[in-house]
Amino acid sequence: MEYNVFAENCPTRLVLDRLADKWAVLVLTLLSQETKRFNQLRREIEGVSQKVLSQVLKKLERDGLIARRAFATVPVTVEYSITDLGRTLTSTIGALARWAEDNMPEIMAAQMRYDATA
Amino acid sequence: MEYNVFAENCPTRLVLDRLADKWAVLVLTLLSQETKRFNQLRREIEGVSQKVLSQVLKKLERDGLIARRAFATVPVTVEYSITDLGRTLTSTIGALARWAEDNMPEIMAAQMRYDATA
Repeated sequence: MEYNVFAENCPTRLVLDRLADKWAVLVLTLLSQETKRFNQLRREIEGVSQKVLSQVLKKLERDGLIARRAFATVPVTVEYSITDLGRTLTSTIGALARWAEDNMPEIMAAQMRYDATA
Repeated sequence: MEYNVFAENCPTRLVLDRLADKWAVLVLTLLSQETKRFNQLRREIEGVSQKVLSQVLKKLERDGLIARRAFATVPVTVEYSITDLGRTLTSTIGALARWAEDNMPEIMAAQMRYDATA
């Protein structure tokens, strides 16, 4: 089967939806650097709620992009790490975050020009 | 000013939101190949509605990533093309779509494994 993101019913559309999630991008970028516990992720990704972070982690785990390990401590410690499959995605995703950081001034200037003429 | 996508109020978060939109990814990928009219885009991006496509094009234009040109034909012809700023983003974004196409089988296998144990 040939996959094609422009085709309506192609399963790759679902993947684009998943990846096209700001929180997923941030989680994968952090985990590509090192294994982290839930609370570490929550602290380092400012503005994410506990509920949303849980959902994002579950989806990424289901897609095989990250792995979850629980340790029988009190309270239970849960660690998340990137998988080999997830690592193949990280450089692409990191480039997206870097692009946003690098090109912000130019984008804000474009927005001001647009709003001035609208 | 230092931009940082992990900071809650950093304007780059807005850009990640914009880019993290399946339709925006598909529009930019198509326009990076050639200038297209509205109806061409609508035809080639299966499943997008007229309303959503209009909104996406407006946001991308506002961000300076694409340019809109109207011609005084009857009915009016409107063409969209990628800007220099948009082009700097295209290779990053194209890599994301290609990654989804290339890794779909592995992701679907991971999902089946996850669902079998859940």
